[in-house]
Amino acid sequence: MSATRMHGHVDPRFAPIREMLDGFLVRDPSLSAQLCVHVRGERVIDLVGGESLDHDSVTGVYSATKGIAALTIARLLDSRALALDAPVAEHWPEFADAGKDRVTVGDLLSHRAGLPILDDVVPLDELTSSAPAAARLAAQLPLWVPGTAFGYHGITIGILIEELVRRVEGRELRDAHEAEIRAPRDADFFIGLPASEDHRYVDVRPMRPTEEQAAELASRPQGDPVLTRMFANFEAGDEWSESGVSTNNPDVRRAGPAGIGGVGSARGLARLYSDALPGAERPIASQETFAAMRQMRSWGIDRTLGVPNAFGTVFMVPQPRQPFGSHRAFGHDGGGGALAFADPETGVAFGYIPVPMQYPGGADPRAVAIAREVRALASA
Amino acid sequence: MSATRMHGHVDPRFAPIREMLDGFLVRDPSLSAQLCVHVRGERVIDLVGGESLDHDSVTGVYSATKGIAALTIARLLDSRALALDAPVAEHWPEFADAGKDRVTVGDLLSHRAGLPILDDVVPLDELTSSAPAAARLAAQLPLWVPGTAFGYHGITIGILIEELVRRVEGRELRDAHEAEIRAPRDADFFIGLPASEDHRYVDVRPMRPTEEQAAELASRPQGDPVLTRMFANFEAGDEWSESGVSTNNPDVRRAGPAGIGGVGSARGLARLYSDALPGAERPIASQETFAAMRQMRSWGIDRTLGVPNAFGTVFMVPQPRQPFGSHRAFGHDGGGGALAFADPETGVAFGYIPVPMQYPGGADPRAVAIAREVRALASA
Amino acid sequence: MSATRMHGHVDPRFAPIREMLDGFLVRDPSLSAQLCVHVRGERVIDLVGGESLDHDSVTGVYSATKGIAALTIARLLDSRALALDAPVAEHWPEFADAGKDRVTVGDLLSHRAGLPILDDVVPLDELTSSAPAAARLAAQLPLWVPGTAFGYHGITIGILIEELVRRVEGRELRDAHEAEIRAPRDADFFIGLPASEDHRYVDVRPMRPTEEQAAELASRPQGDPVLTRMFANFEAGDEWSESGVSTNNPDVRRAGPAGIGGVGSARGLARLYSDALPGAERPIASQETFAAMRQMRSWGIDRTLGVPNAFGTVFMVPQPRQPFGSHRAFGHDGGGGALAFADPETGVAFGYIPVPMQYPGGADPRAVAIAREVRALASA
Repeated sequence: MSATRMHGHVDPRFAPIREMLDGFLVRDPSLSAQLCVHVRGERVIDLVGGESLDHDSVTGVYSATKGIAALTIARLLDSRALALDAPVAEHWPEFADAGKDRVTVGDLLSHRAGLPILDDVVPLDELTSSAPAAARLAAQLPLWVPGTAFGYHGITIGILIEELVRRVEGRELRDAHEAEIRAPRDADFFIGLPASEDHRYVDVRPMRPTEEQAAELASRPQGDPVLTRMFANFEAGDEWSESGVSTNNPDVRRAGPAGIGGVGSARGLARLYSDALPGAERPIASQETFAAMRQMRSWGIDRTLGVPNAFGTVFMVPQPRQPFGSHRAFGHDGGGGALAFADPETGVAFGYIPVPMQYPGGADPRAVAIAREVRALASA
Repeated sequence: MSATRMHGHVDPRFAPIREMLDGFLVRDPSLSAQLCVHVRGERVIDLVGGESLDHDSVTGVYSATKGIAALTIARLLDSRALALDAPVAEHWPEFADAGKDRVTVGDLLSHRAGLPILDDVVPLDELTSSAPAAARLAAQLPLWVPGTAFGYHGITIGILIEELVRRVEGRELRDAHEAEIRAPRDADFFIGLPASEDHRYVDVRPMRPTEEQAAELASRPQGDPVLTRMFANFEAGDEWSESGVSTNNPDVRRAGPAGIGGVGSARGLARLYSDALPGAERPIASQETFAAMRQMRSWGIDRTLGVPNAFGTVFMVPQPRQPFGSHRAFGHDGGGGALAFADPETGVAFGYIPVPMQYPGGADPRAVAIAREVRALASA
Repeated sequence: MSATRMHGHVDPRFAPIREMLDGFLVRDPSLSAQLCVHVRGERVIDLVGGESLDHDSVTGVYSATKGIAALTIARLLDSRALALDAPVAEHWPEFADAGKDRVTVGDLLSHRAGLPILDDVVPLDELTSSAPAAARLAAQLPLWVPGTAFGYHGITIGILIEELVRRVEGRELRDAHEAEIRAPRDADFFIGLPASEDHRYVDVRPMRPTEEQAAELASRPQGDPVLTRMFANFEAGDEWSESGVSTNNPDVRRAGPAGIGGVGSARGLARLYSDALPGAERPIASQETFAAMRQMRSWGIDRTLGVPNAFGTVFMVPQPRQPFGSHRAFGHDGGGGALAFADPETGVAFGYIPVPMQYPGGADPRAVAIAREVRALASA
C-alpha cells in the first residue's frame, strides 16, 4: 500500500471522497490524514493515508477537544444538573465577583463571559491542574461588560468547563469523560491520554505554509493583545517541545486540558459524535438537548480572533466561513486542522485529523470541502 | 424614440438624472429600467428605457415588496392595533413556543427572531397560502437565542407579516393592501396581481454578469446552510419557470407573498412612498410612526447574508454599503435590483425597477448612484 | 540640529525608538512629530523632529481630546458623583425623551446612545457653547434602538460629556479640566487654549497622502449619511480656515469642545496619562476606576465608521486594528494621527502628535508601531 494513497474502507456511495483525499495527498506530499464518517449508525468511510498516520495512530486535536468536552456538558444538561439559563454563580459562588453575577451557564459556554485570557501569564501547571486558574478567572474583571460581546476563550473555556464539572459533579472532567463517555463506548478519544497509549501517539507538528500562504499569514493584523496573550498565557517551552503547551508535552496530554489537550483518532471522534445523533446506538443526551446546544448564542466579529464566528453552547455551528454541515449541525475544529461534528439532518458523524498543522489554523479547508461533499452524498 | 434612450418626463432640475440613465443604457444594452421620483409631492422624474419595459409595464420586484408590505404595518402601528414593544405572542399565542415568548413585534419585524428559514423544505403552496408555514415558524426553535443576533428573513419575514396581519385584522395582507393602501390611491403596485393585469406583466430574468462580475460572484463564500436553504425552502421548479419561486409563476404573483411576490411599476412604488412623507396627499401613517419604523433595530453582520446590514422595522435604512438616502430615509431593495424608498429629509419618494436582475443582487448599484444624485439635486 | 532628525532626550534603553522616528522623518520629509513617553513615572523619551514642531509647540489633536476629557469623567466616577450603571436621566431628566430613559452613563460614554450626529445642521456656536446642542440631543430620537448597536459619536460625545459635567458639577468641562486636571500638574494640554498660549499654536494641516494612499481613500465606500453628517454637522467655513471646525479657528480652540478641540503637546498628553497609572505622582483616580473605564462596552462594526471598533468608557482600547498596548491599556487617537494612552501593565504613558494629518485618519500607524516597540522595550 502506498503512503500516497488513502487505505481502509469506503462504502461505494462515498467513493468520491476517497478520490478527493487521494488528490490532496498527491498535491501535498507532507499531508497525512485520518477520516472516519458514520451515516445513520453505519461506518461508511474509514480511511487513512500519508507517512505519519495509520489507523491505530492517535494525535493531538487541539480545540476539537472542546467538542468532546461538550458531550459531558450535554450529559449534565440532559440530567438537569446544569441549566443554560441559570447563573454560573449558582454552582460557583465566587464567580459572581467583578460584575459576573448574572453571567449564565449559556453565556459562559458560548465565549461571552469576557474571560478569553488570564490577565497574567501563569505557570504551566495551572493548565494541567486548573483549579487555581479557575479561581483567577472567577475573580477577574471581564474584558468586556458581559452581554456586549463575545470572543473565543481558546484555552480558558476549558478551564471554566473543568471547574463547572468539578462544582456540579465533584470530579474532574477527564474522569467524567472516561467513565461516562469514552469507556462505555470503547471510543478512541481521550481527555487525558493514559501512559499505556503513549506508544500510539504521533507528535503535532508545525504548519508548512506555501509561500503564498506564508505571505497571507504575515499580512494579517499583528499584535492584538488578547490574541497574543491567549497563545502565551502560560510559562512554557517551545510549543512543539516536551515542555510546551501542546500534547507533545507528556504532562499536557496526560492531563488533557479541555481547551486543547484531547488526543485520539478520527475513528474515536466519529464514534462519539455518532452517539449525539437521532437513533444513536447509545445516546449521550436527548435530541432536544443537542438542539438547545446547537442554537447559536454568539454571532458577529469574534473579539479574540477578529473575524466573524458562530458558537452554540461549547459547539461551533456552521457559518459562511466554515459551512461544514446543515443548520442543525454542531461540532468543533482544532488549530491543527482537525474537524469533527454531528449533523442530525443528514445523520452524519464526522471525524478528520491531519498531520502536520494545516493552513490557515482551525479546520483544514479541505476538511470542510470533504464535509460538504459527504453531506451531498448522504442526502442523495 | 430609441430603446437605447430613456423616454418620458423629467423636470429640468433633474435633467442630469436622465443623462446618467442614458449612459447606463448605452454601456449595458441588456438593461431596461423604469425610474419614477416625486419630490415634495411633485412627480419630477418619470422615465423608462430599454427593450423590455415601457411605462405601462409591471414586473416582479422581489424583496422591494417588503417595503410596501411595511406600509400596512405602518397603518397598524399608527392605529395602535400593533405596538413595537409588545410580545408577538400577545397577538399570536402559539408563537411563544420554543423560547420565543419575549420576542417583540419590533424584533420580529427587524429580522431578529431567529427564523430566517423554515427548518425543512416544504411544498410551494405553503408560500402562496402561508398559514401552515406560519404555524411551523411559531413552533420552531430559533436558529439563535433571541436577542443575540439578526439575519435576513428573506422569505419568512413575509410569512410572519402575513400571519401578524391575519391575527390583528382577520384578513390577508394582500386584501388589506388592496383595500387600504393600493386602491384608494390607484397605485400601480400589487401584492397579489389580479389576472386582469397579467397582460402587462414582464418576466423577471436572470442576471447577466460580466466576466469580472461572474468571477467575483464565484469567489464569494459558498455553501452556508442558512443562505442555501433560504433560497431553496420550497419544493419548486426552476426559478424562472412558471412553477418556480418567483412572480413568473402565476400562482406566486396571484398570491403575492409579502417577502418576494409583489408586482408593479416604478410609478406605483414612488406613488406609495410619497404618501409616507411629510405633507403627503393621503398620508398612510403619521411621521412619528415612520420615524419609529426607520429607527435602526438591527446593525452588524447579517447572519444570513454574511455582510454588514441595517434594518429598521421591516424597512431597510441607508448604511455604508447602500447609502441611498439621508439618515431619515427608509425603504427596501429587491434581489432583482429594484430600489424604492422615502426620504423625509429631502421629500424624495423614489422607485426604480430594472430588467433583467442586476449584479450583485439587491439594489442595483446604479440605483444607489442615481438616488445619491437625486438627493443632491433635491437639496440644492 | 537637523530638522530631519529627532532631537531631545531618550533613555538608552529606548534608543531604538529614536531610530524608528529618524527613519520616519527620512522617508517622509513632510512629517513633523513630538513623542513623549513616561515609564513608571520616569520620562524616558522626549523627542521632537521635523520642520513644523519643536518641544514648545502645541497643536490640535482632534479626538485625542476625548481621552483627556475622560480624565474628568474618571474623577467624577471616582468620587461617585457619577456611576456607570445609572441612567443618564438621573442627572439630566430631559434626556429621558424619545425612548432614552434607560440609557446609562456607561452607554452614553461608549457611543451606544444612538446620537452620533445632530439630526440637523446647526450654527457653529452650538459647538463652542454646547448647551443648546445638548438640548437637541436630549430631545432627539436615537438613530438605533438603544442597546442594539454602537457608532462613533465623533463630535456629539463631546457635547454629551460637557452637559453631563454641567449637570453634575455645575461648571463647564473646560473649567473643571483647568482647575482639577491641568493646572495642578502644570500639564501642557488645554481644553480651551488661553489666548496667552496662542503664540505656540501650530496649525493643523490636511493629510498629504501618497498616490497609493489617495487611491485607497477614494476606494472606500462613499456617501454614508451618518458619517457624512458627522463631518458636516455645523455651518462653518473650510476646515483649515479660521472659520472652520478645527482648532485653527480661534473660537474653537478657545472653547475646546471635548470631541475635537483640545490643544497641547506630546509632553502634556504623556504627563496627564502618567497620573492614570499605578504609583502615579498625583493620581487622577483609583486604579479600580480606570479598570472599570477600560472595560470594553462596545465591540463590533461601528455604525458610523463602518469598521470594527472597540471602546471602554470614553477611552478607546487596543484591538486588532489598533493594537497600541496590552489588554489593560486605555487612551484615544485623533483624526490628525495623534495617539495617547496609559498602559497599567507596562507602566507606559504615551503621547505622540504628528503634523500634518496622517493617513489613513485616526492614529498614525507609525504611532502604533512605536507604541508596540515601546511596550516590548518596557517589558524587557
